[in-house]
Amino acid sequence: MRGVSDASELVRRRESALGTGYRLFYERPVHFVRGEGVYLYDPEGNAYLDAYNNVPSVGHCHPRVASAVARQAATLNVHTRYLTDGLTDYAERLLATHAFGGTAAGGAGADSPLDRAMFTCTGSEANDLALRIARHCTGGTGIIVTAHAYHGVTAAVAEVSPSLGPNVPAGPHVRTVPAPPGHGTRPEAAAQAFGEQVAAAVADLRAHGITLAAFLADSLLSSDGVIPDPAGFLFAAQRVVRQAGGLYIADEVQAGFGRTGSHMWGYQRHGLTPDIVTMGKPMGNGLPVAGLVARREVLDDFGRQVRYFNTFGGNPVCIAAASAVLDVIEEEGLRANSAAVGGYLRAEISRLAAGRPLLAGVRGAGLYIGVDVVDPETGAPSPSLASAIVNAMRDRRVLISATGPAGNVLKIRPPLPFGRAHADQFLDALSQSL
Amino acid sequence: MRGVSDASELVRRRESALGTGYRLFYERPVHFVRGEGVYLYDPEGNAYLDAYNNVPSVGHCHPRVASAVARQAATLNVHTRYLTDGLTDYAERLLATHAFGGTAAGGAGADSPLDRAMFTCTGSEANDLALRIARHCTGGTGIIVTAHAYHGVTAAVAEVSPSLGPNVPAGPHVRTVPAPPGHGTRPEAAAQAFGEQVAAAVADLRAHGITLAAFLADSLLSSDGVIPDPAGFLFAAQRVVRQAGGLYIADEVQAGFGRTGSHMWGYQRHGLTPDIVTMGKPMGNGLPVAGLVARREVLDDFGRQVRYFNTFGGNPVCIAAASAVLDVIEEEGLRANSAAVGGYLRAEISRLAAGRPLLAGVRGAGLYIGVDVVDPETGAPSPSLASAIVNAMRDRRVLISATGPAGNVLKIRPPLPFGRAHADQFLDALSQSL
Repeated sequence: MRGVSDASELVRRRESALGTGYRLFYERPVHFVRGEGVYLYDPEGNAYLDAYNNVPSVGHCHPRVASAVARQAATLNVHTRYLTDGLTDYAERLLATHAFGGTAAGGAGADSPLDRAMFTCTGSEANDLALRIARHCTGGTGIIVTAHAYHGVTAAVAEVSPSLGPNVPAGPHVRTVPAPPGHGTRPEAAAQAFGEQVAAAVADLRAHGITLAAFLADSLLSSDGVIPDPAGFLFAAQRVVRQAGGLYIADEVQAGFGRTGSHMWGYQRHGLTPDIVTMGKPMGNGLPVAGLVARREVLDDFGRQVRYFNTFGGNPVCIAAASAVLDVIEEEGLRANSAAVGGYLRAEISRLAAGRPLLAGVRGAGLYIGVDVVDPETGAPSPSLASAIVNAMRDRRVLISATGPAGNVLKIRPPLPFGRAHADQFLDALSQSL
Repeated sequence: MRGVSDASELVRRRESALGTGYRLFYERPVHFVRGEGVYLYDPEGNAYLDAYNNVPSVGHCHPRVASAVARQAATLNVHTRYLTDGLTDYAERLLATHAFGGTAAGGAGADSPLDRAMFTCTGSEANDLALRIARHCTGGTGIIVTAHAYHGVTAAVAEVSPSLGPNVPAGPHVRTVPAPPGHGTRPEAAAQAFGEQVAAAVADLRAHGITLAAFLADSLLSSDGVIPDPAGFLFAAQRVVRQAGGLYIADEVQAGFGRTGSHMWGYQRHGLTPDIVTMGKPMGNGLPVAGLVARREVLDDFGRQVRYFNTFGGNPVCIAAASAVLDVIEEEGLRANSAAVGGYLRAEISRLAAGRPLLAGVRGAGLYIGVDVVDPETGAPSPSLASAIVNAMRDRRVLISATGPAGNVLKIRPPLPFGRAHADQFLDALSQSL
């Protein structure tokens, strides 16, 4: 390590060492040297309030996670073809968080809970594996996703991620359904409308001789513009998918691990019992650990017929991080905090928005909030104004971003220990930035 | 953590928590609770000599790597859309290890060195990305691999991994070439013969209307039966591939980071200058870090057109581990050790094999050694005898495995600090096991 570099020099060196595809956030990129709780620090010691990152979900460099990682890295780190204690312990704990929701929510058609886990290193790998399993299990190849979905970067998963744009074309076996409007509808009506869209996609696949393998969706639609509501709108889709012989895959890379506040998993908000649940980003608070849980029947034949070994998947160091994350979520009451502070933040942003046509809609679940930015004159989505707000917030040392099909939805998704005082700091900066 | 469990109870719990696909090594699986240097320890404190694992390449739980991980996990862990120092520092160091070999070896057609890096979390992701880049860059889809290749587990990469067996069929755009016999040929003759096989595969793709995107091969063929020789046999393939408009992708997941002893990278042994080099397993000594380096021209258009962001790829904790690995390889002279101890081990195994028709061939480069096990009567490959030796070694607390198309090749691939005394311990156990 050469120590800390000047930011513009670092940008130049970075551009000549990394592939062209690397991007930096913000018109004036930020350079960080330290993180703690919900703050990141630049080389001058300035604190930036993190209202964006869901990966360091229990807080940047949480001492419990860091010490679990340190201890395990100094003790043992092997693959899963040897017996180790942590892997099985964690798999059991993880399954328990799903078993409760599965039965409590009483999802339709659930004659068996989610009772088996598999581990990968990234959400992309988890979704890639889920698609392989679904295609093996059903014999079909068709995949239905939402219109502006993002599910990862492997070749197979990029193909079902229309948000990557026209340069990454969807495969011939991919169909999309529009995200619901996200407001103003009752759950039953929203579920029925969305289910009908899925049924139409199934019919279109069939008309092209393609059998459905799976419906795959974020349990809180993220790249579609942060759409959590109405809770339950995904419910009827599950029935449609099952009737067509497909699997329901819930992507919890965004919504999982307590982010929505009301539930540990986003699918539980919708009363679903998925066939496969994929998870990633917040799982190890930054360590690369991801995976899926599924009904045993879904995995059995794939497991017998197909050799799948993920070298780093489920390694003891990453599992130690993941296990510490579950500890912290429970012991620090982060799910309840997400519900409380998320609700407060949403209410206060709505108050700010009330007098301002610039902010056209505020929605969210727990500490995942989306705000539509529109042209105050025309009411049209305004990505340029959204970007201006994002950069103005950065200048006030508060980190957010923008998302959605038009790029005009402010994406507010802080680490879960975000408290009321942090929310107030955020609201001050937002008020000034507007 | 519940602490240490009884092994058979742990196997039972593991089977009821993990997907059916999980396998354990050995007839009597081993349970580990601690690792240090080239040894792993079971709950009773018994030491197992590790002559198999290349992931903990600089030694299990190397204190320098463990402390770098501990320090970084407590300081900062963010993604690559913010500026951090470690990422660029490491990218520059990594590129430097390639620049030297590239120019020194003077590979044909190299008007530009490997000058850009991209980071992923696993070798599978690195190969998946390399295939995406190659297809984007060339406009072709055809991929040529060796007959029993293994390149990973994503859907796209499994499709070019024939060693996964008939349940994972190759795509229609995949062609295979047989691995060379691995002995008895001069480099020029071997290179010409192998190049002709690749040319035939290119012609067969063309005959099916498929344009070549890439040739992808381990620089030390691994799952094909541990075939490093004759050094240079891959040389002519590069020219054939370039003439057909394809890219040469060197998979260094096995051979890289000094394993072959003579060179930092396996392709350097063959005098190649690849277009893309993928790397993984030993890169972070067990932390999930992987990536690729490439000529800038190869990455440029992909980087401009295709959004690729790997959330955990290049994160500071994994980069700290990777950086410490480079430090240890250099400062502990592990490449020279691999050459010296690998040579000694190969010579001594050859002496053991001399009087025994059971062991039909010994080959390797540095600390990667393959030994053919055959039926002493018929001379036919014997996977059952290989398996018996592997299990007998395990009973003597020495870890190896078997590989190759017939599963009859002993795979001896210890961490790089494996010393002469460890080699002697290994040889005693092997002698007894035979």
